[in-house]
Amino acid sequence: MNSNSFKYETLPKKDIEKLKKISNLCRGDILKMTTVAGSGHPGGSMSSIDILSTIYKYANINSNNPCMKDRDRVIISNGHISPAVYSILGRNGFFDIDDAIAYFRKAGSPFEGHVDKRVPGVEMNTGNLGQGFSAAVGVALANKLNQYDSHTFVVMGDGEQQKGQIVESRRIARKYNLSNLSVIIDFNQLQISGSIHDIMMQELKDEYEATGWEVIDIDGHDFNAIYRALRYSVHTAVKPVAIIARTSMGKGVSFMQNDEKWHGQALSEDKLDEALDELGINNNFEKYRKKRKKEKNIKFKKCKPIKIPEIDIDGKIVYNEKDKLGNRTAFGKTLLNIAEKNKGKIAVFDCDLSGSVRTKEFANKYEDYFFQLGIQEHSAASISGGLSLNGFLTFWADFGVFAVDEVFNQLRLNEINKTNLKVIATHLGLNVGEDGKTHQSINYLGLFRSFFDFKVIIPADPNQTDKVIRHISNKYGNYFVGMGRAKSPIISKDDGEIFFDRSYDFEYGKYDVLREGDDATVFTYGPLIAYALEAHKKLLKDDINLRVVNVASPLEIDEKVVEESIKTGVFITYEDHNVYNGFGTILSDYLMNKKYNNIDLVKMGINEYGKSGHYEQLYKIAGLGTDNLVEMVKKNIK
Amino acid sequence: MNSNSFKYETLPKKDIEKLKKISNLCRGDILKMTTVAGSGHPGGSMSSIDILSTIYKYANINSNNPCMKDRDRVIISNGHISPAVYSILGRNGFFDIDDAIAYFRKAGSPFEGHVDKRVPGVEMNTGNLGQGFSAAVGVALANKLNQYDSHTFVVMGDGEQQKGQIVESRRIARKYNLSNLSVIIDFNQLQISGSIHDIMMQELKDEYEATGWEVIDIDGHDFNAIYRALRYSVHTAVKPVAIIARTSMGKGVSFMQNDEKWHGQALSEDKLDEALDELGINNNFEKYRKKRKKEKNIKFKKCKPIKIPEIDIDGKIVYNEKDKLGNRTAFGKTLLNIAEKNKGKIAVFDCDLSGSVRTKEFANKYEDYFFQLGIQEHSAASISGGLSLNGFLTFWADFGVFAVDEVFNQLRLNEINKTNLKVIATHLGLNVGEDGKTHQSINYLGLFRSFFDFKVIIPADPNQTDKVIRHISNKYGNYFVGMGRAKSPIISKDDGEIFFDRSYDFEYGKYDVLREGDDATVFTYGPLIAYALEAHKKLLKDDINLRVVNVASPLEIDEKVVEESIKTGVFITYEDHNVYNGFGTILSDYLMNKKYNNIDLVKMGINEYGKSGHYEQLYKIAGLGTDNLVEMVKKNIK
Repeated sequence: MNSNSFKYETLPKKDIEKLKKISNLCRGDILKMTTVAGSGHPGGSMSSIDILSTIYKYANINSNNPCMKDRDRVIISNGHISPAVYSILGRNGFFDIDDAIAYFRKAGSPFEGHVDKRVPGVEMNTGNLGQGFSAAVGVALANKLNQYDSHTFVVMGDGEQQKGQIVESRRIARKYNLSNLSVIIDFNQLQISGSIHDIMMQELKDEYEATGWEVIDIDGHDFNAIYRALRYSVHTAVKPVAIIARTSMGKGVSFMQNDEKWHGQALSEDKLDEALDELGINNNFEKYRKKRKKEKNIKFKKCKPIKIPEIDIDGKIVYNEKDKLGNRTAFGKTLLNIAEKNKGKIAVFDCDLSGSVRTKEFANKYEDYFFQLGIQEHSAASISGGLSLNGFLTFWADFGVFAVDEVFNQLRLNEINKTNLKVIATHLGLNVGEDGKTHQSINYLGLFRSFFDFKVIIPADPNQTDKVIRHISNKYGNYFVGMGRAKSPIISKDDGEIFFDRSYDFEYGKYDVLREGDDATVFTYGPLIAYALEAHKKLLKDDINLRVVNVASPLEIDEKVVEESIKTGVFITYEDHNVYNGFGTILSDYLMNKKYNNIDLVKMGINEYGKSGHYEQLYKIAGLGTDNLVEMVKKNIK
Repeated sequence: MNSNSFKYETLPKKDIEKLKKISNLCRGDILKMTTVAGSGHPGGSMSSIDILSTIYKYANINSNNPCMKDRDRVIISNGHISPAVYSILGRNGFFDIDDAIAYFRKAGSPFEGHVDKRVPGVEMNTGNLGQGFSAAVGVALANKLNQYDSHTFVVMGDGEQQKGQIVESRRIARKYNLSNLSVIIDFNQLQISGSIHDIMMQELKDEYEATGWEVIDIDGHDFNAIYRALRYSVHTAVKPVAIIARTSMGKGVSFMQNDEKWHGQALSEDKLDEALDELGINNNFEKYRKKRKKEKNIKFKKCKPIKIPEIDIDGKIVYNEKDKLGNRTAFGKTLLNIAEKNKGKIAVFDCDLSGSVRTKEFANKYEDYFFQLGIQEHSAASISGGLSLNGFLTFWADFGVFAVDEVFNQLRLNEINKTNLKVIATHLGLNVGEDGKTHQSINYLGLFRSFFDFKVIIPADPNQTDKVIRHISNKYGNYFVGMGRAKSPIISKDDGEIFFDRSYDFEYGKYDVLREGDDATVFTYGPLIAYALEAHKKLLKDDINLRVVNVASPLEIDEKVVEESIKTGVFITYEDHNVYNGFGTILSDYLMNKKYNNIDLVKMGINEYGKSGHYEQLYKIAGLGTDNLVEMVKKNIK
């Protein structure tokens, strides 16, 4: 409940006239900006503008201070109604409305085709349907945890309701009793291809109620009804509320009304003239056409994410050879250790695997900060992303196939929104073993290399895992930390001392030379390191010196280590990963670029989906056993 | 309605005893195989075995002919209950039960941890929850189209119901009135982390009913009840039926019962002894342990997908310069042309974009073979994959971001199941223009390179598009054909003749040399080809000869063309794609591997998310305009 939000008991009569007037102006703006741009989505913009003008007027937001910490959040899940959003924000003084009209969808302008948070008042970039709502659930969760007097309003389309991810997030909002969240659906009953009922019949009210929401059905062009429903959802409701606002696509212009043709098509200039005439708005289109031709660099102050209080990462744990544990167990222990010193600063998300991904102890100790989302990974990726922008060090731990293969597009939107999510993925690679191919994530490097900013770290052993988790806990940005399933031997130096000892700090992008050698270099990471060290030992007996390099940041090239290794003449990449798009390719790309002509690069990796069996067997079948490596070294050294 | 399926009006009394006996034996098998393997999922296997033994007995399937065309289909969506599935199939004579017990989860054996269709009687590989149900909807759709007297039974877990994809597919099954489909949910009310009600509360009955299904609630250990519900769903129901079968996890062994601990954990040998004792089954565990040690190559005859009748692909369309159209329009025309000559052989799937992806005319003409699935891409990917195995040339057309970024994991399961799906992706790259970054798919090559078999084709112009669509229409396998949004100029030869003319046939993996040249080679594809040809022309004025190569199969290396191009000394890859994981990387990888040391490889591509604006502007901003290419050539030639 936000006392500054929708504070009048009933909508003052004089306000209705104001709202009508501003909505009408916005309708004109919407039509002008889409026509001047030659594209865009007027239909849903016209149907939702009465809703938007009501929300933006009475929600606790402030055009003079769009970033205030406990502001209400308005999240537009159907990002294509950007013309409506930009017009009402402009009319409410967040920026010059003329700029929005003139530069809508012009290359370089912040007024992008789908809402962009470079525009003041826009909280989240959206576009691919279904994700914005989930992100909003994450925001509402954070506000609840932060005990902010803030309400989150989500505007959604009706076609969008078809996305499965929406249903997942509805259940989650109910589970966490997010009465600080309301959804308002622009129920114009049309989607691109026609009537929503023909395209994919949905009993919306029944579906929402079946997931425990309260549903209010209103006329979405009746300001009183919109106000009352929203006020009820903010001040009275004890559970999340969905407002089904019955509207007309293209509302306000008779020839556009209830015609799906105008979902994603701008008016011609003639039609614009006709429409503005009907709206009683002066047609000053020429002004905008001229303005658009002039370049203008429009930059606004961006809202910063809510800061996470400094995390105390002291207290390194050092394991020794007798400690038999996997990296995932080490992750769990470090998480717990950090959590103890940073109470209330850390949130952890799970999808029914906390036992396996080792977040169970955290869950038991810090119940309020642990979110069990069930088998709903699409939502988990977006919700944890949304929460990560709001003041908590945020971890989402899951199996690799669920943490990236299943949610690639959700992580993509997180990246676009510059979230601050730490994805911990266990059960990577053939190392998964018996669960077989559907559960073996062997393509994550190729996937993350397809992004721009996500950082990937694959720790070598429990000691490095501990340091990596501490490292990322104080770094802003999206990280993916990957590990296998099996136990990981503690890595020692030549002299038997622990390699990643108390003096060691993780540095992103740096490789670790585990063994020196002159005859060949093996670049490896994760569970195969132990095999490479074994191969090193075996080869020594034949007087062959294999340099062993741990590539804990496989998206990066550690130029120093690579260049030092050039002298060995032979490079072998050796990975529990698809051989076509793994580290071998990244290194190859680099070497080609640098014209390291004399290097023989041999790639060892996986070239078909894995079998189901003990991982050591699977490595053998895939040609990735110690003996395979030994043989490959012998075959290739000069 | 299948007259051979569940044909007794009531379950014969003597059968109940038989079912009890066989289920009990299976429980023993389940426990033995998981203990001998040391892992697996006994809990859900024990709770679902009574359901499975009933289905497999009365469904129209035949252990002597597991591949018969109009057989009933049993699809196990919760693939981890493989021990139950293998045990009942073995006991029903599909194979030697002893092999299943001894070699469960042994590397190389078909008895994988998640059901594998190398095992006779298993219809579909599954594992990641939610997808199997969708694939089954595809199978049921195909059976309906084929007018096969065949029923599809889907076995699902209750935790699995949380996946959003399930809800999407429920709606689709209702829309297409799939009364030939029943779902039976093993409602043991436990998932890995505990009670399904605690993990993620769901009113299952309400949720199914809200999506228009009929729900039957039964005791899942009462054979009479199971039989009656299934018979009703096959013979009487007029809509899809969901049977909520109330069961107990670990049923049959008192210390296992209703304890989620046994979801994914095998019994120790001692506990196995105790359990078998309770089941009244002789403990012959030793026999299996010994047998497991011996290698055995188990191979079964696989069921072939239902054959698609030969497609007549004659009737090439040749466009000339005056035809202003995009590749997506050419796709639509070719599709229609092929459909006219192959009535009833082609199915097309859409996710509310048929106007944009140009399947609308097909939809209008061949209504029965056009499936409008709404904005439900996860389901669309899996359903179209399922249907593609059952006798129809299957196209799914969508925007790139939805056709791969959003459904990577669904396509992965398709690949594992060796489906035969033709994904047509329009709106790739910055070429999308004004819709902006959320809608610009700029990473598809990196994603498909992370698979093993999916083929990717990016046609150069409408003429090549026509030939490509004809080509793939008669090829088995999964294809991704990608195109931009804008119009594509018709490519001509030097002499002005049409390049991809009537004499041209598409060959996968072959590049096209569009212009000869000695000074540098540009490798490009898709919408940038026109720019490269323009650059070729401009450079000629400076006496620089740029070789222009169209890479329509960018996952492949055309060694002949690459080797011929070596003489030019400079290679420029020039793509409307993420520069870090696109064709430039594929070529670099090849060159490094082949040690083409003297080549300068320059990569031009996208290095940040795109803006929203006219695509020509976006290319300029990204440094991908014609002038950028001209400059790059000049800078790099020797």
